[in-house]
Amino acid sequence: MSKKAICLLSGGIDSAVSASIAKKEGYDIFALSFNYKQRHKKELDSAKAIALALGVKNHVLFNIDLDKFGKSSITNLKLTPEKDHNLNEIGKKIPSTYVPARNTIFLSIGLAYAESIDADAIFIGVTSTDYSGYPDCRPEFINAFQKLAEFATKKGVEGKKIFIKAPLLNLSKSEIIKKGMELGVPFEKTWSCYFGKNLACGRCDSCLLRLKGFEDLGLTDPLKYKSK
Amino acid sequence: MSKKAICLLSGGIDSAVSASIAKKEGYDIFALSFNYKQRHKKELDSAKAIALALGVKNHVLFNIDLDKFGKSSITNLKLTPEKDHNLNEIGKKIPSTYVPARNTIFLSIGLAYAESIDADAIFIGVTSTDYSGYPDCRPEFINAFQKLAEFATKKGVEGKKIFIKAPLLNLSKSEIIKKGMELGVPFEKTWSCYFGKNLACGRCDSCLLRLKGFEDLGLTDPLKYKSK
Repeated sequence: MSKKAICLLSGGIDSAVSASIAKKEGYDIFALSFNYKQRHKKELDSAKAIALALGVKNHVLFNIDLDKFGKSSITNLKLTPEKDHNLNEIGKKIPSTYVPARNTIFLSIGLAYAESIDADAIFIGVTSTDYSGYPDCRPEFINAFQKLAEFATKKGVEGKKIFIKAPLLNLSKSEIIKKGMELGVPFEKTWSCYFGKNLACGRCDSCLLRLKGFEDLGLTDPLKYKSK
Repeated sequence: MSKKAICLLSGGIDSAVSASIAKKEGYDIFALSFNYKQRHKKELDSAKAIALALGVKNHVLFNIDLDKFGKSSITNLKLTPEKDHNLNEIGKKIPSTYVPARNTIFLSIGLAYAESIDADAIFIGVTSTDYSGYPDCRPEFINAFQKLAEFATKKGVEGKKIFIKAPLLNLSKSEIIKKGMELGVPFEKTWSCYFGKNLACGRCDSCLLRLKGFEDLGLTDPLKYKSK
């Protein structure tokens, strides 16, 4: 019987590469995306396109109203994500786009999905380098969630593990893009910009990190940008 | 400034006593209940009544579709919770009423709420004795979540703690009821039965544990039961 993996899929580059690694490792992919009242739904269209390209077994779109706790510029439209940061400033402090406990919540729901289909692993595309300074993207966080998963689940009680896999944890954005290229990730279908306009803004932290990732490899991002 | 606590409130006895302990300890109470597509909404009416009696600062009712992962008799109406167990059988194996990763998900959302209002603690009414055999009611689980909370949050990065408090963890059902009596918990407003009928069934694990708790104290449960 083939192995099953829940793959968190945001529509961005990192989760697309993470899920492609799961596929390469021989897992059947069960994609999980969240409509969490984020600023725009464009990234969810990207998630669907990537799921289709990956040939997933199933793709669950889970609704969760994280705007109930309105402190983030991702879920509170009255706030605005930072723009035009110097690249070496990104990650130094936690930006307004941090959504409290988001990855904890997403992994928890992934854990419920994993238990219900007896999956072996959950793949999450977090990276602790070239990241935005979010606390829930660090190795300590992933390790702590792995421990929790062992105690939280029926599977854990039975002495079996659900592995929390974060294969990009120690990769830079350019290394992630390189890995994605090797695996044939359709980067033109991904979406990273915090603003869900027709063209990517090229100025928010997420666009800046992505653009630099391609640039470092001497490549051109296949996405169209407003400011280019 | 007074301390703030998120109190998970299910409408049952344990969470009502847990929240009353938080109040007694001087916390301002921010109640959090979940409409997670459980079998019935009667327990949510109880949660509201308890929140009112406690004089909470706020009561968030959070919608989350845990019936998407349909393996539990609590969220899948095609399945039926166990009835007429011998009391000494309860907790020996994980029953059909186990909802995968439920407490992990509820605590994660509690963590988001806590971060958004800068709360000091999250109270959860789990108990590892006289319980139903759920993995996510054990001390190991609570300890693992405490560790996770430290790495998952902005507050953790700043070196501050959000305490995961499970004051009933080592108490038996009768000890919980005794504690609740001392604190003036309105037990007649609580609801424990897995079936949301007009009268409690008196036969599901939850009713059986509750009835025994009152009986052990030589008291009569103020709730009305079908089988009495």
